[in-house]
Amino acid sequence: MAREHLMEIARKVYRSYGFTPIDTPTLEYSEILLGKGSDETDKQLFRFRDQGDRDVAMRFDLTIPFARFAAQHIGKLGTPFKRYHIGQVWRAEKPQKGRYREFIQCDFDTIGTDANASDIETLLVIHDLMEAIGFERFTIRINHRQLLNGLLEKLGVIENSVGLLRALDKLTKIGRDKVLREMVESVGVTSESAEQVLNFAEIEGTPAKILSQVETLLDGNERGQLGVEKLRELFQVCQIAGIAENRIALDVSIARGLDYYTGTIYETFLTDLPGIGSVCSGGRYDNLAGLFTKEKLPGVGASLGLDRLLAAMEELGLVDSASTPAQVLVAMFDKGRVGEYLSIGRKLRAAGIATEVYPQAKKIQNQFKYANRKGFRAIVLAGPDEFEKGVWTVKDLESGDQVEVPGTELAKHLQQLLGEQGIQASE
Amino acid sequence: MAREHLMEIARKVYRSYGFTPIDTPTLEYSEILLGKGSDETDKQLFRFRDQGDRDVAMRFDLTIPFARFAAQHIGKLGTPFKRYHIGQVWRAEKPQKGRYREFIQCDFDTIGTDANASDIETLLVIHDLMEAIGFERFTIRINHRQLLNGLLEKLGVIENSVGLLRALDKLTKIGRDKVLREMVESVGVTSESAEQVLNFAEIEGTPAKILSQVETLLDGNERGQLGVEKLRELFQVCQIAGIAENRIALDVSIARGLDYYTGTIYETFLTDLPGIGSVCSGGRYDNLAGLFTKEKLPGVGASLGLDRLLAAMEELGLVDSASTPAQVLVAMFDKGRVGEYLSIGRKLRAAGIATEVYPQAKKIQNQFKYANRKGFRAIVLAGPDEFEKGVWTVKDLESGDQVEVPGTELAKHLQQLLGEQGIQASE
Repeated sequence: MAREHLMEIARKVYRSYGFTPIDTPTLEYSEILLGKGSDETDKQLFRFRDQGDRDVAMRFDLTIPFARFAAQHIGKLGTPFKRYHIGQVWRAEKPQKGRYREFIQCDFDTIGTDANASDIETLLVIHDLMEAIGFERFTIRINHRQLLNGLLEKLGVIENSVGLLRALDKLTKIGRDKVLREMVESVGVTSESAEQVLNFAEIEGTPAKILSQVETLLDGNERGQLGVEKLRELFQVCQIAGIAENRIALDVSIARGLDYYTGTIYETFLTDLPGIGSVCSGGRYDNLAGLFTKEKLPGVGASLGLDRLLAAMEELGLVDSASTPAQVLVAMFDKGRVGEYLSIGRKLRAAGIATEVYPQAKKIQNQFKYANRKGFRAIVLAGPDEFEKGVWTVKDLESGDQVEVPGTELAKHLQQLLGEQGIQASE
Repeated sequence: MAREHLMEIARKVYRSYGFTPIDTPTLEYSEILLGKGSDETDKQLFRFRDQGDRDVAMRFDLTIPFARFAAQHIGKLGTPFKRYHIGQVWRAEKPQKGRYREFIQCDFDTIGTDANASDIETLLVIHDLMEAIGFERFTIRINHRQLLNGLLEKLGVIENSVGLLRALDKLTKIGRDKVLREMVESVGVTSESAEQVLNFAEIEGTPAKILSQVETLLDGNERGQLGVEKLRELFQVCQIAGIAENRIALDVSIARGLDYYTGTIYETFLTDLPGIGSVCSGGRYDNLAGLFTKEKLPGVGASLGLDRLLAAMEELGLVDSASTPAQVLVAMFDKGRVGEYLSIGRKLRAAGIATEVYPQAKKIQNQFKYANRKGFRAIVLAGPDEFEKGVWTVKDLESGDQVEVPGTELAKHLQQLLGEQGIQASE
């Protein structure tokens, strides 16, 4: 229930921004999925020959299938094209905490435009998504790949960028000294350059302050200045759009997606559970489908880490323990009145109240036990007395209060008892 | 979009009755899936050995995984247990119209009870589901396996039931004479028995009339009388619950699910497209998980044929042609005003209006073309004049009307323009 609820929120938020749902087949030709992938990817594929002796495999992410799909259909779809895709992916790896052989990805992307407005919108989507899920305390950390690239270019160490960024990525894990040593000893840059990269990555403050420092340091470097401009616009627009300042931060040390991302980068952390890592990440890329088409498809997007977020919500006690999507249980007292019990269920549903009718006239204690175990909020009862009086007995399982309510007022009474939350949950 | 919309309706209806969502893994051990299955099933499996040399296969329906799941967890879940499962299944068969290698099933079941109330509720769920999807003209055809079985028992030909029912199943396709010949020549019953089976299957009329005729014919046969009683209660309750009479019919000739169903059977036909076959079918079974547990798990359920229904809706012109889930496009006129455009988008979304913001300040004609192609209902525009006056120009792309609206009244104006439907769609 909790997972389905999260997916529903994601769908709703994505759609509210005009992202269209797509789905692609689970099985793709293995050569499509392997692409330029490393050996490691190869090993993680559930790959086999089907009845037609085709070499196929189950998709291991939603990005490569999207690239294949976009390359095939973009002429018909037109650009910009905004899609979301919520679907399972499969990886033949050893299951462990937070890593599963089958899990759900929730991706959204805008392709066919390099406009910064789409980068900013991606941030707004992440923000609205987190808020819609119910989080108040989170920070979206933002960076732009061209800031660090600009610095490396200026320092004349751009050829070492992969090694330097990989070392930098370990900053919080292994500390400054070890990163510095790795940059000098393994990557092979001067300790002065390494020091400057680290100093740069450690700049802190408000986005405006960081950007003006960075601008000075990158003076004369074109790609770096371009990154600064785009980020400046992003933070200005967020201010105009009323995004709370503590929800977004500029972090010039983030270097995620080394090979893939080329512009803005996003990571999202829960203030109350930062250790779980980013729950929604993404970025801008230059070309989605280079393997499949000559048409250049730049884009920007992000992915909600559904299962990780769910684990976090469980840890934070944010997952409802009820195991029924209905709030009200109609007990079955008299097996000769099945029609009345099923009818009242229909009437309550028509009033927006999800209602289950117990199917058998078992002992009433058993039906109460069932209701409590499943987490129903209220139980609705009628025996001979009630039917004669034209009333229903309503027991609030939370407070224990029990009242008799005329049949005509039952829906209204329950709506009040359940409050807005109950009605929304049933919608 | 249409498929996702159908799934959402199914989820909402299932949940309103207290069915809980479950999901099971795509891959199961092949021996689980093969069970007592025939060779044909074997051939349709996407089956392979995984990295751990396990013989696994992709599920080909949601029933066997549910049986395995229920056998494993029913002690913890308790009974009655109501679940729905909307998920992909895979069959390695030749794709053709209405048959796909990957398609979605939407199952719901109540297990652990043999109460007739659950059979009746299953019918109500199908009814509400069809209505919620938007169908007015449909008929749910109902039968009970024990009527025909009772007759065969009374005629002393119960050992021939599989052959007789299989022949009977062809009645509408090959006609009375050929069915009669098959019963006599292939199945090997007397022509008198065959005649009586056919006469029985051809009884028509209101449920009450059919049931009283059937009751007479089955006089003295216990299992047949039990079936009559259960159906009589079903139709009585439907009347109490206010189900329109033309939406349900008793059809004593239906014999679906030969090996599996043991009680009530359901098939659902669209009045305007009967040829497409049943779009929602199911029935009661004696024991879900006999292969996996000694605990007897009787149950009743049905499955919405999502892809078939979608094909029917397309044929009936019931599928919206718009390819965007948003109704409003905010055009980008001035690239210096990205903040204003993105902000108005946020304000409209907060008012429940799904809104896309065009990301680039391209020629306004191109943005209109985009809006028309995607099927937006309205476009919202502002250039220097509008910003100075504090207004937005709203163009209704359906009527062509264009008006200026103050920023503070924009959401209200669009809500009225889009009407209730637009707002609901965005929710």
